[in-house]
Amino acid sequence: MKAGDIMTSPVETVREDCSLEDAARTMLDRGIGCLPVVDADGALAGVLTESDFAAKEKGIPFSLYRFPQVFGDWLPKQGVEKMYAAARSRVVRDFMSRRVETVNETDDLETVLTKMQRTGFHRLPVVSNGVPRGIITRHDLLRLMVRTTKGELAI
Amino acid sequence: MKAGDIMTSPVETVREDCSLEDAARTMLDRGIGCLPVVDADGALAGVLTESDFAAKEKGIPFSLYRFPQVFGDWLPKQGVEKMYAAARSRVVRDFMSRRVETVNETDDLETVLTKMQRTGFHRLPVVSNGVPRGIITRHDLLRLMVRTTKGELAI
Repeated sequence: MKAGDIMTSPVETVREDCSLEDAARTMLDRGIGCLPVVDADGALAGVLTESDFAAKEKGIPFSLYRFPQVFGDWLPKQGVEKMYAAARSRVVRDFMSRRVETVNETDDLETVLTKMQRTGFHRLPVVSNGVPRGIITRHDLLRLMVRTTKGELAI
Repeated sequence: MKAGDIMTSPVETVREDCSLEDAARTMLDRGIGCLPVVDADGALAGVLTESDFAAKEKGIPFSLYRFPQVFGDWLPKQGVEKMYAAARSRVVRDFMSRRVETVNETDDLETVLTKMQRTGFHRLPVVSNGVPRGIITRHDLLRLMVRTTKGELAI
């Protein structure tokens, strides 16, 4: 079985200059947790995931303390809803992950699993000549567990 | 805003003695990545997530080498599909995570975000007297980004 057999395709993508609000709405409407981000030529430039909308741990310079940040600002004791509202018009480019691991359609399943495990990434865009053709997420692996019925994979 | 305002509820749960195949089918059919696992009394006993179906890194005793495992066996060079097929009848109890972080419906949003960040967990069951009432995932946080329309949160 190859990456092309198990990937979700076509894959929804988003432009770098899309607002965070529009990207979030796409993810909610489609029930997806990751959007490959493309440049003006349609080439993969990064990925935006659900985790980019959650709190991230950042250290304080010259200190061992590490505190949660949301959209690059410290998490307040209260009123975090306002931070989300204020971030709506900011653009995907400023928050996407530029470190992206990809696979090709012809990569075998063992390569996909190993790459997910080694990188810790839950989602791998499947690319052809730098252009996203599909995506494989941990959710797609669930199809390997179920016996063949209509619409599911035969293994 | 409280955990109870943003959680997905009711939450789909699964019994400890459910087969991995049935659990995977539920996750696929419902498009969800996490199932709280309950005991015979309906109390939370663990969680099963998409990641439990992916490769995990395990060390070799008395060695620095770490290799990927799937369902407790080393990832083979090929034929991993057979490992998935063989694991179908195994039960949830043997693979679920017993270390579960939960929140209460009355916890505020800042507590939820901090707990997700501190633990690294993407999903937190919302419990009342030990019984799952809902779940908050990183996907639920996307609702904070979109302006109020029908079916979405007002903030």
